[in-house]
Amino acid sequence: MCEGNSKQSDKAGTLISANPMTEPAFGIRLHEKHVGILALEVYTPSTFIKQSKLEKHCGVESGKYTKGLGQEGLAFCGDAEDVNSLSLTVVHSLLEKYEIDPTTVGRVEVGTETLVDKSKSTKTVLMDLFPGNTDIEGATVVNACYGGTAALLNAFSWVESDGWDGRYAIVVAADIATYAPGPARPTSGAGAVALLVGRDAPLSFNPRERATHSANTWDFFKPDPTVEYPEVDGALSQSCYYAALENVYNRLADKINKVSKEGVKEFDAESPDYWVFHAPYNKLVQKSYGRLFLMDARRNVYDSEGEEEKKDATDLHGSLTDWLAKPSKETYGDKSLESTLKRLSARAFEERLSDANMASKLVGNTYTASVFLGLASLIDRVGGKGQLTPGKTLGIFSYGSGSLATMYRLHV
Amino acid sequence: MCEGNSKQSDKAGTLISANPMTEPAFGIRLHEKHVGILALEVYTPSTFIKQSKLEKHCGVESGKYTKGLGQEGLAFCGDAEDVNSLSLTVVHSLLEKYEIDPTTVGRVEVGTETLVDKSKSTKTVLMDLFPGNTDIEGATVVNACYGGTAALLNAFSWVESDGWDGRYAIVVAADIATYAPGPARPTSGAGAVALLVGRDAPLSFNPRERATHSANTWDFFKPDPTVEYPEVDGALSQSCYYAALENVYNRLADKINKVSKEGVKEFDAESPDYWVFHAPYNKLVQKSYGRLFLMDARRNVYDSEGEEEKKDATDLHGSLTDWLAKPSKETYGDKSLESTLKRLSARAFEERLSDANMASKLVGNTYTASVFLGLASLIDRVGGKGQLTPGKTLGIFSYGSGSLATMYRLHV
Repeated sequence: MCEGNSKQSDKAGTLISANPMTEPAFGIRLHEKHVGILALEVYTPSTFIKQSKLEKHCGVESGKYTKGLGQEGLAFCGDAEDVNSLSLTVVHSLLEKYEIDPTTVGRVEVGTETLVDKSKSTKTVLMDLFPGNTDIEGATVVNACYGGTAALLNAFSWVESDGWDGRYAIVVAADIATYAPGPARPTSGAGAVALLVGRDAPLSFNPRERATHSANTWDFFKPDPTVEYPEVDGALSQSCYYAALENVYNRLADKINKVSKEGVKEFDAESPDYWVFHAPYNKLVQKSYGRLFLMDARRNVYDSEGEEEKKDATDLHGSLTDWLAKPSKETYGDKSLESTLKRLSARAFEERLSDANMASKLVGNTYTASVFLGLASLIDRVGGKGQLTPGKTLGIFSYGSGSLATMYRLHV
Repeated sequence: MCEGNSKQSDKAGTLISANPMTEPAFGIRLHEKHVGILALEVYTPSTFIKQSKLEKHCGVESGKYTKGLGQEGLAFCGDAEDVNSLSLTVVHSLLEKYEIDPTTVGRVEVGTETLVDKSKSTKTVLMDLFPGNTDIEGATVVNACYGGTAALLNAFSWVESDGWDGRYAIVVAADIATYAPGPARPTSGAGAVALLVGRDAPLSFNPRERATHSANTWDFFKPDPTVEYPEVDGALSQSCYYAALENVYNRLADKINKVSKEGVKEFDAESPDYWVFHAPYNKLVQKSYGRLFLMDARRNVYDSEGEEEKKDATDLHGSLTDWLAKPSKETYGDKSLESTLKRLSARAFEERLSDANMASKLVGNTYTASVFLGLASLIDRVGGKGQLTPGKTLGIFSYGSGSLATMYRLHV
């Protein structure tokens, strides 16, 4: 699914033949490692419901799910599937399509929140796909929709590390999202993504270009082990998503802008060529992206502590003056601000985020897999037209309830 | 609990004041980083049962648990405790005792298999202990008793990484082990350990000195979400533990011996000054340590593939000739071999492993925390006498059912 992969795989193959256990890595500069994503593979169930039909079935007004949530469909599993079968399918497919020798994999880590066992990890079930190779690190990570991102960051660190033995890491994110009958049910979905991680990657990661936010929140959790459904507070979850997004965005912008060279465009809502957001439903992503424009306007007027007013700066967007000094939390429900931000961000959203969002519009929320499904969607739709050219950058935002979120930048 | 820590904390404090985001880490050689464990803290419940009393209560013959399993007691929790409260207590205690400013922590990761929620991770609950700091990476890792080790290896990679921002990582391993009435019940236990990870550590880790084994096994799992008890196949779990131990031990010995300098003692069962094993019960650890002597004898006679006989070598231990050519699996139940290995390894076990095992003998199996409780026990008993002197090495073996195991070496 990742263009340019066959070439990159060859490069990685060359690396594998050099044994890093005997060839010291000292002296290799980080930017020469190009740690990142070599390839990815997606699996979604073939069973699917159109949101317009679900509206009729649920007896709600037409457009409530399609326009209100911005969703077109949702994928669902029969009772013959669980998170282990989803993971087995997607990893098997990755190995097969990219002709990966199972002995060249040194790490497999799974992110999920659809556990079928409190102790036995999905990672160990996947070991059946690696005959003749028991030498594979990695376990299973849990943190609502964030587990896959935790696994990916761990894999990046492992591949960057001096302990890396030259082999691939595979990161799996798989989930089945289901909700009790009610307003959240149309945000169900199901899917899995497997990512191949290594050096000399076509999508590379600079480990300094990331920012994290975590807090003890009770927006979404699964305390009752006998039911599949979560306890979810929709309004609180949206606030937590906004708060996490704004924090990691401001932090990442501060980090990148602090070290950026003179003459290089500042990191802001429109500087990454493309964005990929964790997508519970399309409308939330659209509204959230708008929040970045408020953050940019604030940063233009205030210093990074949000206190001292920059005397020579103006609100570039002109129309946000009323909200600049207000604490973010107090503006989350403000419909007037929402429509102003929608107007300001509409074109940029269409250009930079709508391609990533397309897959989630069709199959629904896939929890840990959602952000990677978005990445796959972007690569398919934009990369497929040859437009993911070297030098382009992607801003990635991953959110998990509870809560834990990271924003990072990838380089083509 | 870690001697020399106050000095080391000062060093780490110096590092923190230099901001790695603006001071490039390029050029820092790995061995100058000394990534490792700066300090650790233990919590076990104050409620406790003597195994001799449990024998009477269960109506089994005297000595079945105390001599048969080699256990003296087990700790247990009341219903006011769960894995979140254990984790909160041990992290709070670590922060307090070592006077750690919560803003100097950049990563918190938890390993557990006593989940109280399928989605909300224990890591997010711990965020309450870090007021004013939401910038903390890390989630919760699940893989039976191995989750804490996965979290520790992730923390080591993060601290080694160029993305490290100079702050501490905290790794938490916490579990409540309970079994249905029957032969496994005396191997219950409860406890939590928190480890402070950073650079310039008194116990440092070389990322190349580790070896992993993973396989899809069904020795121990928790498929029924309505009960606390695992499904466990004791005999299978013991075989899986042996197989994992032998694989990681042989791999680690191969790795270390391949690059060791001439004149330096080969890595074998007696070359680490101390060992720490994951300890389901004391007797299993004792028997398992004996297996390393069989591996050493084999390696002395055969090459690393186990095929070609070394012509000029002899079985150093003399008495293992009958078992050298047999596949390991066929020897797991061999009582005659077991007593031979016990005799051969008894002195070394006493000198190198019994101190680490002491805590688990008293409080029982603490699952993910077990291996770190062993490390704390060693530091307390041996370090407390000033005998963990620079240059000494520790061999650490962590096993999680399902299965996933790693052996690594730490340097004082």
